[in-house]
Amino acid sequence: MVKRVAIVGAGVTGLTSIKCCLEEGLEPTCFEKSDDFGGLWRFTEHIEDGKPSVYKSMVSNTCKEMSAFSDFPYPEDFPNYMANAKFFEYLKLYAKHFDLVKHIQFKTTVISIKKRSDFSTTGQWDVVTESNGKQGSSVFDAVMVCIGYLSESFLPLESFPGIKKFKGSYFHSRFYKHPDVFQGKRVLVVGMGNSGVDIAVEASHVAEKVMISTGRGAWALSRVFDNGYPWDMVFITRFMNLVRNSLPGPILGWIIANKMSQWFDHENYSLIPQDRRVMREPVLNDDLPSRIITGKITIRPKVKEFKENSVVFQNSSEEEPIDIIVFATGYTFSFFPFLEESVLKVENKQASLYKYIFNPHLEKPTLAIVGLIKPFGAVMPVVEMQARWITRVFKGLCQLPPVTTMVKEVTEKKQKKIHWFGFSFDEVLKTDCLVYVDELASFIGSKPSLLALFFKEPKLALEIFFGPCTNYQYRLTGPGKWAGARKAILTQWDRTLKPIRTRVVEDSSNFFPYLLKIFGLFALFAALFLGFQ
Amino acid sequence: MVKRVAIVGAGVTGLTSIKCCLEEGLEPTCFEKSDDFGGLWRFTEHIEDGKPSVYKSMVSNTCKEMSAFSDFPYPEDFPNYMANAKFFEYLKLYAKHFDLVKHIQFKTTVISIKKRSDFSTTGQWDVVTESNGKQGSSVFDAVMVCIGYLSESFLPLESFPGIKKFKGSYFHSRFYKHPDVFQGKRVLVVGMGNSGVDIAVEASHVAEKVMISTGRGAWALSRVFDNGYPWDMVFITRFMNLVRNSLPGPILGWIIANKMSQWFDHENYSLIPQDRRVMREPVLNDDLPSRIITGKITIRPKVKEFKENSVVFQNSSEEEPIDIIVFATGYTFSFFPFLEESVLKVENKQASLYKYIFNPHLEKPTLAIVGLIKPFGAVMPVVEMQARWITRVFKGLCQLPPVTTMVKEVTEKKQKKIHWFGFSFDEVLKTDCLVYVDELASFIGSKPSLLALFFKEPKLALEIFFGPCTNYQYRLTGPGKWAGARKAILTQWDRTLKPIRTRVVEDSSNFFPYLLKIFGLFALFAALFLGFQ
Repeated sequence: MVKRVAIVGAGVTGLTSIKCCLEEGLEPTCFEKSDDFGGLWRFTEHIEDGKPSVYKSMVSNTCKEMSAFSDFPYPEDFPNYMANAKFFEYLKLYAKHFDLVKHIQFKTTVISIKKRSDFSTTGQWDVVTESNGKQGSSVFDAVMVCIGYLSESFLPLESFPGIKKFKGSYFHSRFYKHPDVFQGKRVLVVGMGNSGVDIAVEASHVAEKVMISTGRGAWALSRVFDNGYPWDMVFITRFMNLVRNSLPGPILGWIIANKMSQWFDHENYSLIPQDRRVMREPVLNDDLPSRIITGKITIRPKVKEFKENSVVFQNSSEEEPIDIIVFATGYTFSFFPFLEESVLKVENKQASLYKYIFNPHLEKPTLAIVGLIKPFGAVMPVVEMQARWITRVFKGLCQLPPVTTMVKEVTEKKQKKIHWFGFSFDEVLKTDCLVYVDELASFIGSKPSLLALFFKEPKLALEIFFGPCTNYQYRLTGPGKWAGARKAILTQWDRTLKPIRTRVVEDSSNFFPYLLKIFGLFALFAALFLGFQ
Repeated sequence: MVKRVAIVGAGVTGLTSIKCCLEEGLEPTCFEKSDDFGGLWRFTEHIEDGKPSVYKSMVSNTCKEMSAFSDFPYPEDFPNYMANAKFFEYLKLYAKHFDLVKHIQFKTTVISIKKRSDFSTTGQWDVVTESNGKQGSSVFDAVMVCIGYLSESFLPLESFPGIKKFKGSYFHSRFYKHPDVFQGKRVLVVGMGNSGVDIAVEASHVAEKVMISTGRGAWALSRVFDNGYPWDMVFITRFMNLVRNSLPGPILGWIIANKMSQWFDHENYSLIPQDRRVMREPVLNDDLPSRIITGKITIRPKVKEFKENSVVFQNSSEEEPIDIIVFATGYTFSFFPFLEESVLKVENKQASLYKYIFNPHLEKPTLAIVGLIKPFGAVMPVVEMQARWITRVFKGLCQLPPVTTMVKEVTEKKQKKIHWFGFSFDEVLKTDCLVYVDELASFIGSKPSLLALFFKEPKLALEIFFGPCTNYQYRLTGPGKWAGARKAILTQWDRTLKPIRTRVVEDSSNFFPYLLKIFGLFALFAALFLGFQ
């Protein structure tokens, strides 16, 4: 039986994996290359190897209620969207509360993870690590790989003719830390993902000129969504998800396009996705349209070529002078350096994993990849649920289906994905992470049963169905049930409003009786008739 | 007959006054204290006496089409909302095109403007100026005072108990230039006008903590309005104005409150005006809600008192530590230093002026105050129309009504204003500047006649009625008619889109036939029924 679990990496995923191991009575040992936990959320001035860029000003894209671990809500005075330092503070509280740090070996690099010779019966692994120049080896019953997929910058220079002639400077967004480098410069950001736009917006406060080059375009979303509610609390609800998944793709696409254009017309602002039928990940930025309309940022098409001190865009012959190029071309993922190909093979940036976690071909399910998924929404609920399921699979409390079933599902998923999004991205809106997390939750018996709940406690059931799909829902029932879950759900809006309702004015909103509203409409129509005088 | 006109000040108002004088064949001489024109729009690192603060990053609150002089549209590639430097560029183009600079005497201060002894017959003025330490005196037939009202900072320290004990630093917003002063500090901004919020937002990028203290609150508006159109092009139309002016105050208030809360709920974000029935000037800022929801800015109530290193807010006993206070408490206005009280008397920050321009008690209408008005919208159309009317009054082509009529109107207006807004502010939404400018235009015969136009050129008439009320409308007819006006109106949206439509994607928006929309609605309802499963 599995007892000792090796965990590689002490980022968000690694931390919750330690916690889930402890919850199931396993003995986790977490190996962390750097000298602290927190992974990409811990800002450092220097670029750490195998870590994506976190710039000083980075703010979370998902709000605190949606980004909470299921049994550990944020302190109520935390802001809804957090600077990385604040989010790191939450991780420290989490680590302290569940006493996780003592299970982490810092400054320890995993060199190799190999099946033991008796793997087919024991499922055990030889894990070789290196710390302070000394190597050590231990036997583990199971392994959780928690290093994410954002370590290799993707910088396809060969796709940019003339880049070798370019005399200015250029760098990958991963190397961006502070906006000072852009002071007074003419800046081109290539790529319009979240980092690209964040960097462009920051640059636009100090640069002479900022352009973003994008071939594909993107829908842009603001954290400040309908009526100012956090976007993900409005967008990611069971109700909305059901509506989205019930609608045929083109209709959904049309509704989304209309919704997205309420904030601003994406065609007028030059952001319109090239193919509106493909539901690519939207870019989340509050400031982009305002920077565009004040002329601080200009959106341009794909780069045709670079010259010595300028760039030429597609469908144009004009040269635009530039001083700095930031390639916000994203990350790629090719392999886990410590794993053999027989254990995990990555092709086309995808590993063939059952539920994104288990290699179906391994004789024993004692190696799990955690967090190799890019949810549209917060990552915490997804990786935590993965870890909860994995640890129960390790313990034999949950069973994997037969190999053929797993292989069939993996193959089908892959093809569907390619059809919808091309490579490299999860089915964002169509079969999103809510469905995925629900599925894993049903495996372990933690999926809330809405119908039963509705008869028992309708208020709670309605909040779960129509309200934001927060992670606490998965602690209402089944293994890992948490007594605080019910209250956490019913108070989630209180914690949302707490940090922003800091000036209360006596309510005078009802000074205006309902009837007057109707009268108002009449008056409006009357005014319309009087209109053309 | 009036020939020689003295103009005091070469800001926006002074420049257009010179231009209007020339247009009417008058001989303007403009006296400008500093060494360049542009007034408050010309950023300087040092604080100039008698000039309000323009911080380095200040961006115009009104868009280029709404801020244009009536016969001089902005170049099409100018951004819609402009940094002060860009706006100054426009003023330079204007000055050059109409050859205005040669009429300006720079570094020349007006010391006194006094009625000549034969004023009651000639209406002439003795104008004493000082330049390079030398005084000179000239006789002018008329005077236009164009120095605005934003020169004296309003800083009522006595209303802030304990401010003398406070050991940190504090300054009036007028002295703000760059955000560096806030680096790592705990900042309190007192007051929530446009500068206060601008400064708070800038500070929030570098400060440790930023709070805005406001008793009254305010509605916040974004430049990026419905569907991303410039707010003033949507808001300030003849149609919308008619609707607004046809509705009873409370209904209008209710509609506005609802509209304002679409972007974000002002109660949740702590901005809600204390008295929602009073239509105070909204604050224009694109970033405020996003800075609040990310915890970078906190809105607090009125200050109760200051302590050595902290502040206590009303209805609270908690001390909040602060390092810097910015008093964004606005400007005041008490007198024109070069005018005698008999010529112009200011009481309660108001001068009793007919149409905000002429002192009804002067024997001859040869002294005009230009720009002593705070429009909700761009200042250029208002001051230009004032100058157009004034110059025609000077020439005797337009007549003022009898003194009693003027006095009566002035008194009534004053009382109404106090009723609606308290002192110091114009009737913002109710009888706004569109009505005022239209009235002046009708005096000179330049008000467009929509009905006549509708039969002649319906497209143009519809654009004038439903489209943004741009200044070109006042050059279609009457004196000062400009041949380019019609085209300027019909191409105003092109110039708006030009600087933001910088990446064009082949239109695929019609891939989705109309019928599918209806089908989509059905599917949505079906989904709702299936909903609770």
